Amino acid sequence: MYPKKQLAQLVISACQFYNIGTVVISPGSRNAPLTIGFTNHPDVETYSIVDERCAAFFAMGIAQQKRKPVAIVCTSGSALLNYYPAIAEAFYSKIPLLVISADRPKHLIDVGDGQAIRQENVFANHILYSANLLEDTNELGRNAEMLSEAISTAIQKKGPIHVNVPFEEPLYEVVDEIGEVIKDEVLKVSKELTSTARNINYEYFADIWNSAERKLILIGVNYPSDELQSILSKYANDESVLIMTETTSNLYGSNFVNNIDVLITPLNEKSFEALKPDVLITLGGMVVSKRIKQFLRKYQPKHHWHIDKLEKLDTYFCLSEFVQEVPEMFFLELINYKKKISSSYKEHWLEIENKRIDSHENFVKTISYSDLEVFNVLLKSLPNNCQLQLSNSSVIRYTQLFKLNPTLRVFCNRGTSGIDGSTSTAIGAALASKEQTVFISGDISFYYDSNALWNSYVPSNFRIIIVNNSGGGIFKIIPGPQTTNALNYFETPHSLNAEYLAKTYGFEYESVTNIKELENKLSGFYSDSQKPKILEIFTPSSVNDSILKKYFKNL
Amino acid sequence: MYPKKQLAQLVISACQFYNIGTVVISPGSRNAPLTIGFTNHPDVETYSIVDERCAAFFAMGIAQQKRKPVAIVCTSGSALLNYYPAIAEAFYSKIPLLVISADRPKHLIDVGDGQAIRQENVFANHILYSANLLEDTNELGRNAEMLSEAISTAIQKKGPIHVNVPFEEPLYEVVDEIGEVIKDEVLKVSKELTSTARNINYEYFADIWNSAERKLILIGVNYPSDELQSILSKYANDESVLIMTETTSNLYGSNFVNNIDVLITPLNEKSFEALKPDVLITLGGMVVSKRIKQFLRKYQPKHHWHIDKLEKLDTYFCLSEFVQEVPEMFFLELINYKKKISSSYKEHWLEIENKRIDSHENFVKTISYSDLEVFNVLLKSLPNNCQLQLSNSSVIRYTQLFKLNPTLRVFCNRGTSGIDGSTSTAIGAALASKEQTVFISGDISFYYDSNALWNSYVPSNFRIIIVNNSGGGIFKIIPGPQTTNALNYFETPHSLNAEYLAKTYGFEYESVTNIKELENKLSGFYSDSQKPKILEIFTPSSVNDSILKKYFKNL
Repeated sequence: MYPKKQLAQLVISACQFYNIGTVVISPGSRNAPLTIGFTNHPDVETYSIVDERCAAFFAMGIAQQKRKPVAIVCTSGSALLNYYPAIAEAFYSKIPLLVISADRPKHLIDVGDGQAIRQENVFANHILYSANLLEDTNELGRNAEMLSEAISTAIQKKGPIHVNVPFEEPLYEVVDEIGEVIKDEVLKVSKELTSTARNINYEYFADIWNSAERKLILIGVNYPSDELQSILSKYANDESVLIMTETTSNLYGSNFVNNIDVLITPLNEKSFEALKPDVLITLGGMVVSKRIKQFLRKYQPKHHWHIDKLEKLDTYFCLSEFVQEVPEMFFLELINYKKKISSSYKEHWLEIENKRIDSHENFVKTISYSDLEVFNVLLKSLPNNCQLQLSNSSVIRYTQLFKLNPTLRVFCNRGTSGIDGSTSTAIGAALASKEQTVFISGDISFYYDSNALWNSYVPSNFRIIIVNNSGGGIFKIIPGPQTTNALNYFETPHSLNAEYLAKTYGFEYESVTNIKELENKLSGFYSDSQKPKILEIFTPSSVNDSILKKYFKNL
Repeated sequence: MYPKKQLAQLVISACQFYNIGTVVISPGSRNAPLTIGFTNHPDVETYSIVDERCAAFFAMGIAQQKRKPVAIVCTSGSALLNYYPAIAEAFYSKIPLLVISADRPKHLIDVGDGQAIRQENVFANHILYSANLLEDTNELGRNAEMLSEAISTAIQKKGPIHVNVPFEEPLYEVVDEIGEVIKDEVLKVSKELTSTARNINYEYFADIWNSAERKLILIGVNYPSDELQSILSKYANDESVLIMTETTSNLYGSNFVNNIDVLITPLNEKSFEALKPDVLITLGGMVVSKRIKQFLRKYQPKHHWHIDKLEKLDTYFCLSEFVQEVPEMFFLELINYKKKISSSYKEHWLEIENKRIDSHENFVKTISYSDLEVFNVLLKSLPNNCQLQLSNSSVIRYTQLFKLNPTLRVFCNRGTSGIDGSTSTAIGAALASKEQTVFISGDISFYYDSNALWNSYVPSNFRIIIVNNSGGGIFKIIPGPQTTNALNYFETPHSLNAEYLAKTYGFEYESVTNIKELENKLSGFYSDSQKPKILEIFTPSSVNDSILKKYFKNL
């Protein structure tokens, strides 16, 4: 069963050509031709999510894990505007997302019709391509071209594209097959997805590399990569090379600095001078640590090379070379030119790092019940090989203070660092992942995205852990808000708990208020269950900030 | 206590100049200078709402009732994208809304910083004005001009404007007073809000009017207006004039057609020919009835005049005159030229209308428990003089079938007709209104906006009534979805109930499953209580559609 509408057939054919196998649909009437087409298609898995904001983040979570584009489909009107937060996140996190909106025909826009808004190019600021399909059936060729351009762009440039599809009524007519002329048109304009190799002058890079005594490799958000892990381990043996990895880099190594803030927070000007690299190599996406960004912007290296297949990022305002290459390839090639150079750079900083880790360990042994203690217990409790999803922003920042179990795969929406869709993303990711997914969230972020739970596809082994400090704890931690007469407008204190939300949406629920209870509950928390589970950990808002401050002082 | 930042002072001064007395703030750090300024300001009422989507609809509800602009303030990043659904609604519903977003300084956009997106002009498609303020302190004059232009536009053209305000750190510094130079600049560029009178050639209109035997006045969404009510009552005495009012027009009259669909649904081609007016006068905003739109587009009048102070709307593709005037004024003036003309137009149609109302009354007496019966009981139960807020889309459509208590004031988000923010809007409206507010919602719309309940400002006499037919009942009513193999993707069936949501957010909760229970519960439902209340009415999804079909057949 296929929709009779030519444009709907075209969209479905193009998606089939590019192997779009997952479509998340939000209910509506204007998108009926697409809904009929995708749900009845044998090669497409469809999901129904009512709240478009959640639907888009959920789709993004699936795309994040499958590393393939996922389509979202909605009706006309304000529906698609609810996609925008996830579109921006996908844009900056480089996750392919096909945003397909049904629209009213053009002559019904701005004449007083319902659910009719100006949908064309509405995401212009954060979209890789906008295909505004044309109603005129004579425009089949042009429409096919735009669609092909849109989908191939999403795949190759990794990000969101928008396809706007106007439909005149009637919307529910069906036929048995997609027209041959449509299939032909799709084939005719289809693009080969090739990537061109670039010529990189490795000798140039090697000359600089081999004459520098202090080289820093800094890795932000990155997919787990055995190849990168393995090649970087070789670089880590070089005494002139210091490797700093963020938690979201999914890289681990005993001679990597895995918790940047723990190392650099206590440094003074003199130490910063000593840490300042001659060569900085960056790869991966966003960097969480504000402190490393401040440091590198103030103490700029002579050479900054950013290695990325797609995007030039000048985060520290001193980029000297953008190397448009897959980082694994760059490092594999450069190693052929690499010479041993005598340096105390790595040793010096790893020594300090080790001292800091000792201080960290000693401190967390002594602390009282607080967010910091909770994270210490939580992160150790995680099962091997699970996928860890983290919300913004306290949660990811606390997590970065700890050495993680290296079998974990860690994800966090750091494209826009929003609090708005972390739960939905985690549920999509859990669905798409073979391993168990554990999602740790702050309370404000969790309640913000509570509609995420309105979802029939949550795997029963999915786990949510809410660290509930009764408000945006981060606003007590950063200096400033407490002195404004308006702390409540920053912290937003509340006394919510998730027990009834869990009941509403079919999750098991447990809560704890001290560390003993937490340890007890965690023992069976990850094992098989009938339903997904929520564990809510209430921590004392009044002491969290002072303990964290003491922690940093103590390092 | 005022923020030290010049730009924040400027925004606060300009808001003060234009008497912006209500500001809804969502928490964040980048907007701290604005948060500090507004919360500490003696002339400004501030509210804190975490979820920006709800915050914007809540603010819109306040602005809808106060008929004055309300400001919303958020931090940088995806936060402001969550405003977009409400912005589009405000744009099409002509509700003044000042959207004020804090931003990172320009050099931190697209370089890999957190919560940094492309905020400038991000609402371009649905905004009256975008003021992208400049960081450079030398641009004080230009910034003041843009701000003044923005705010005065929101007030005069009635709709949303966007002010984007970049702030460099530090964000929390305060001073005792706003700089004189800033106040001066605001005064210098301030605009007088005058409106120019237009010359209308009433003789021209009178000539056509006085020679037409069939004149139809159709009124869409409109604020309650005694003046309009009174002048239209005079026109209603004219036998050549038929007045059709939608529920959202807030106009009532025994010789008005108050339930358009009841009158026209059973008509055939011949009757449509007889109903076709010579002159059509339209006023007010959106029209809910699809049938009247279809009718007027097919049977186009010779003359269509749209009367509105602001916007030309050619809804029926036959607009002959756009009269840019307040409708009350136009009708008051035209009456001076009006001549008696002999016609059976009004009498004929009011007779049919009266027959239909008899059929309606007879039918609803006999029906079994269903959405239709529930609305019959509900709408009669509403207290005098209350404000009635309705969700989209079944709820408003069912309500349009009934003659309402003329003391009610009725509102519904018909700008984009979205299901996405009706509860938040209703809560804002309840807060701003002196009368009790009752909000009737469908289940899908209610659960969509469940975060609306996360709000500390809900008046205790606010009432929510959920007509829960376990899914988007409208998709069983419209023809089409049932034949697609994909009904679940339209209707989205669920078995949610709001009991636990009510517990989570501090509402009283009751539910009923038959008409006796409903009548019993309603007796005390509207009287004073400690907490706001939710009444959830479960109706049988399997019979609602067939009863409605029978209803129309029976008319």
